[in-house]
Amino acid sequence: MRRRKFLGSVGIGAAATTLAAPAIAQSAPQITWRLQSAFPTSFAALYPAATTMAKYVEEMTEGRFRIQPFAAGEIVGPNQIADAVAQGTVEMGHTASQYYHGKDPAFSLGTLLPFGFNTRMMDAWQMQGGGLDLLNTFYAKHGFFALPGGNVTAQMGGWYRKEINSVSDLAGLKMRVGGLPGSIMAKMGVVPTAIPGGDVYVSLERGTIDAAEFTGPFDEERMGLNKVAPYYYFPSWWEGQAAVHFFMNLQKWEELPAHYKAILRAAAAVAADEVVTRYDYGNPAALVRLISSGAQLRNFNEEIIATALAASKEVYAELNETNPEWKTLYDSIVEYRDSAYAYWQLTELSYDAMMARLRTQL
Amino acid sequence: MRRRKFLGSVGIGAAATTLAAPAIAQSAPQITWRLQSAFPTSFAALYPAATTMAKYVEEMTEGRFRIQPFAAGEIVGPNQIADAVAQGTVEMGHTASQYYHGKDPAFSLGTLLPFGFNTRMMDAWQMQGGGLDLLNTFYAKHGFFALPGGNVTAQMGGWYRKEINSVSDLAGLKMRVGGLPGSIMAKMGVVPTAIPGGDVYVSLERGTIDAAEFTGPFDEERMGLNKVAPYYYFPSWWEGQAAVHFFMNLQKWEELPAHYKAILRAAAAVAADEVVTRYDYGNPAALVRLISSGAQLRNFNEEIIATALAASKEVYAELNETNPEWKTLYDSIVEYRDSAYAYWQLTELSYDAMMARLRTQL
Repeated sequence: MRRRKFLGSVGIGAAATTLAAPAIAQSAPQITWRLQSAFPTSFAALYPAATTMAKYVEEMTEGRFRIQPFAAGEIVGPNQIADAVAQGTVEMGHTASQYYHGKDPAFSLGTLLPFGFNTRMMDAWQMQGGGLDLLNTFYAKHGFFALPGGNVTAQMGGWYRKEINSVSDLAGLKMRVGGLPGSIMAKMGVVPTAIPGGDVYVSLERGTIDAAEFTGPFDEERMGLNKVAPYYYFPSWWEGQAAVHFFMNLQKWEELPAHYKAILRAAAAVAADEVVTRYDYGNPAALVRLISSGAQLRNFNEEIIATALAASKEVYAELNETNPEWKTLYDSIVEYRDSAYAYWQLTELSYDAMMARLRTQL
Repeated sequence: MRRRKFLGSVGIGAAATTLAAPAIAQSAPQITWRLQSAFPTSFAALYPAATTMAKYVEEMTEGRFRIQPFAAGEIVGPNQIADAVAQGTVEMGHTASQYYHGKDPAFSLGTLLPFGFNTRMMDAWQMQGGGLDLLNTFYAKHGFFALPGGNVTAQMGGWYRKEINSVSDLAGLKMRVGGLPGSIMAKMGVVPTAIPGGDVYVSLERGTIDAAEFTGPFDEERMGLNKVAPYYYFPSWWEGQAAVHFFMNLQKWEELPAHYKAILRAAAAVAADEVVTRYDYGNPAALVRLISSGAQLRNFNEEIIATALAASKEVYAELNETNPEWKTLYDSIVEYRDSAYAYWQLTELSYDAMMARLRTQL
């Protein structure tokens, strides 16, 4: 009924559009893309980025541009997405750039820098500070183009079978952690261990590993890690934020008509915001349930944080010396980070600290 | 050249689209809307939300849906936008809901709650916590529909001609502040004063007012307030965030075809994110310049914060008793706020505090 009313009220416009129909048809080709997510459907904040991207693009183009989402592993595995996109096996992926740290450590900076940004700073750096352009200059050499696809936000510092009271407790600690954070922790005595997500619970239970870091309460609650590694540490000095992206085959992206590019950018903005709001809404309630079922909150002490910072600076100095791709990104990140935190201290941090202090009196 | 290549590679799809052209033409009518912003073009984070909305909608529809942006006052004044949208004088506005506090204090909750959310919490509440639906149930009674249109983020606590060392220094203080924060400050002894933005500098210089609050360094730097009211206070206990929205005439919104609605939602997401990233990128540099040209940073002390909280709770108790529209929104906001801050304390706040502490050692 609304539709009929609508058509009535814009009769003149509709007639004008009919005249222009041949041109419209030419510029809005029928396309189908495949979108491989790195995340299983059980990741209820990250996986929906793929389905939201698909839904919005289909709706906005009235079905002319279709994107088929695939959950982790359905076409290629979570660590093969960058290559699959570059080779055109799939046109699009949704993943964390840091999964390609082994290919080039500069990939990590698309996701995180230990002692780096928080979530909003990462967004501001990408969208206003030239960060996304710098990342895309780097990604273009690997055959793909990226749009921001959400953020896991500040994480907890992982689950531990025993308390970590000093740096000496980290010596020989087998921890599920990889990429750039793993290479820093290795300098602190930790033994970074690669374990698939599905095996983490059993590995902790059997003592094959001593600790594991994942994302946050919203995802971790389902895994039951609190039952096998009850000490839940904070802050995660290595993940003040962890960005994810949509990767697109570079040639396929460049060949799109301009309005399809705008549609992908806008759909990505919806999907990216949704990832963050799902975490921000889901994490607090999940944390309450984790604590009531036995999770023990613990704070990393100053000695551990200071050692982590020293180890990070060592790793960064090495990479700045040897890897120009890394250095370009790193220099741009730390320049904004330093001024941003000076400001944050007075506004966001000052407000949040006041609210946390008054929490029981509100 | 790219275009030809592209058409070649999707020949079959393009043919199918040609056959479907008549249906497409019917469903994509030519429409032009007018979008009245509440903000002047000099507000370089807020005003571009209107032009970005217009640009994305036009690009995504290949010019079939056009939105013409107008800067503050070009069609109706900043405080007349809700009425103008409801009456169809303009189809869309970009404004702060709190400007309609005088009509009903519940409008303020679309923008802010003193001792309420930070920016990400407001977004999460709106998009995942049912907040936007609650707001739209309220707005529908006033003839319009809203989509999130950005956030001014945590603000500074205003510019003061003299230091504020105790609550007694607030007695009789004439301050440019309005709406809900103004009604709370009135209980603290402040005399809230309505002054147009353009007159703030002169009013402070002449002592017609003693203090003024605006948005943040990015906007305030241009106004030169540091020269006439050098004490720049924090935290802004009344504005941990301040959301803005796109308001649309309810009937015009409902009459849109589904894909135009999706396009407006997605364009709003791009514009909203852009407002936040422009502030987050622009504020830190502006603050540095303000300090080097004489702004004196000052912290509201605990007595002032405690008095502000007590005054806020008094105002909220009165409104909860007398205004059911307010109460519905307020109850939903504070429920999420309380659990969110418990979580924030361990993750975001804990990380940001660590970074602020280590800032000079990074």
